[in-house]
Amino acid sequence: MTMIQKPYLLFLGDAPDQLAAKVAQGIRDWRPENAVGQYRMEGCGADVGLDEMSLSEGRKAGAKTLVIGVANRGGVFSPAWKKVLLEAIASGYDIASGLHNLLRDDPDLAAAAQRAGVALHDIRVPDRAYPIANGRKRSGKRCLAVGTDCSVGKMYTALSMDAEMKRRGMRSAFRATGQTGILITGEGVPLDAVVADFMAGAVEELTPDNDPDHWDHIEGQGSLFHVSYSGVTMALIHGGQPDALILCHEPTRTHMRGLPDHVPPSLERLRDLVLPIAQVANPACKVVGISVNTKALGEQEALDYLAGVEARMGLPAVDPFRHGAGRLVDALEAV
Amino acid sequence: MTMIQKPYLLFLGDAPDQLAAKVAQGIRDWRPENAVGQYRMEGCGADVGLDEMSLSEGRKAGAKTLVIGVANRGGVFSPAWKKVLLEAIASGYDIASGLHNLLRDDPDLAAAAQRAGVALHDIRVPDRAYPIANGRKRSGKRCLAVGTDCSVGKMYTALSMDAEMKRRGMRSAFRATGQTGILITGEGVPLDAVVADFMAGAVEELTPDNDPDHWDHIEGQGSLFHVSYSGVTMALIHGGQPDALILCHEPTRTHMRGLPDHVPPSLERLRDLVLPIAQVANPACKVVGISVNTKALGEQEALDYLAGVEARMGLPAVDPFRHGAGRLVDALEAV
Repeated sequence: MTMIQKPYLLFLGDAPDQLAAKVAQGIRDWRPENAVGQYRMEGCGADVGLDEMSLSEGRKAGAKTLVIGVANRGGVFSPAWKKVLLEAIASGYDIASGLHNLLRDDPDLAAAAQRAGVALHDIRVPDRAYPIANGRKRSGKRCLAVGTDCSVGKMYTALSMDAEMKRRGMRSAFRATGQTGILITGEGVPLDAVVADFMAGAVEELTPDNDPDHWDHIEGQGSLFHVSYSGVTMALIHGGQPDALILCHEPTRTHMRGLPDHVPPSLERLRDLVLPIAQVANPACKVVGISVNTKALGEQEALDYLAGVEARMGLPAVDPFRHGAGRLVDALEAV
Repeated sequence: MTMIQKPYLLFLGDAPDQLAAKVAQGIRDWRPENAVGQYRMEGCGADVGLDEMSLSEGRKAGAKTLVIGVANRGGVFSPAWKKVLLEAIASGYDIASGLHNLLRDDPDLAAAAQRAGVALHDIRVPDRAYPIANGRKRSGKRCLAVGTDCSVGKMYTALSMDAEMKRRGMRSAFRATGQTGILITGEGVPLDAVVADFMAGAVEELTPDNDPDHWDHIEGQGSLFHVSYSGVTMALIHGGQPDALILCHEPTRTHMRGLPDHVPPSLERLRDLVLPIAQVANPACKVVGISVNTKALGEQEALDYLAGVEARMGLPAVDPFRHGAGRLVDALEAV
């Protein structure tokens, strides 16, 4: 499992706008205690509201890793970026990146890191071999968000349920399976980059035995209805052996993300497909709630939509971004 | 997609018995035209019934690739094996192997191959990058065997249906997704070694557009009910977008292979789970027949069992090894 040393200094580089700094914003929103400050280059259009720091100020504040919290343009490290990264390496930072082009593939960065004895974390790439899943029942409880499509708010749902549980003093962990989640928490499995035979085993390792009252909130990936990635979703369900499922949905989508010929399923169809699949790994698994991304709807429209889903399906239906994850956590407490 | 030059000389090495030469036997059974002969070392206890040849006789008979048709002991190339492999390389053979330890990782073999300009095919490892699946409907027809468990006869079922179709003059291909299948046909995708995000795309590429009356018989992998490998099975179903499914079963198994706590499902439970999954990728998909591995049953017991399944499920149920794949092909002809 990838493990990144904390705390971080967040590198926003020359991000043109706030959207480009999505990863940094995620860290700021969900694990602000993981970051001592932000580092912005000249012309940076993003600001996640942390203290501005130079590299040496970051080190003095205790930062161990410079996390690239921003997307780069054209998949290359610009000379301006590289100058900063080399300086960071020389002053003892590890570097962590979720970019497609790898830090380790840049000869200058690789050589500098070796000289300085620091780590380059390319968190898109698994940094170790995973075992084959053994399917043994593990102690502790697990919750997984599954979507009618990709990118419908599964990570947000899991993070907000984890945060709500912690607020209530419950024992809870967010288990990251994708790059943003891994950078937010500093650890996890980049599941989409794991070799097929070891996917479910990687998820088992990510969500090990735990105390009976402890909940893992496993970050979802893909969708059982998205033919490009459904195998990853399946491994997540069978490796994660969840006790509880949250159905995630975006109600205005007209086709599956990236698949113009594929129409998204209804929440009912998702429920009916996912439950028997999940019960292969955990016969006691239940669908306990519904999380809807209502960003595209007005406030009243969203409330009406959620009330309609709730009436149809007999399960709490909320938009955790708008209304909090409290009712989803209530549903888990009842499991 | 891995492509191995044909014809082969089959290397049986010092196989202690016939079982150790399973791969060579598979080639002999299903694609005898792919092999000019067999090469046996002193003390070899296996014999697949092809002409005995030396390396130079094999070359004279046209062999281009020496295929390692036998499992090695302890995952190493013994000095005796290596001597033969080096001699084969020097005389111009490509080498193909499905062993866990890779030809390319042996410095002597790698150096010799480079000198001689021949290829070392480690067919357990993908030899190229695959695309992400696009989910577009492809022309031609596809059949996939899915199992209640792993190792219940999916490959055998697909190969025997392909052979029966060819006998009837129908247009048909076997599409290999595992090491034995790849060595038998000389091409395919080692699906369990593909990176998660690209599994379904690899299967799409393996089973491209074809003539409307052409059937691909896709080699199955894993099982939707086997939590270690179900993600691979899922990618095969969604990447393969089959028109027809054959359910495969071994009736005497008391637990899932390698998972002592997991009980195999009934054929009905497999049917009910796989069909809605397959219809995500191809709404017209149907379950058309049942293939039972009755090896553990006596002849009358097998016939009674098959008759019972057929009556229960209303689908042709056969053991293709005992009784041929004719009735399964009849069912495909009716699709």
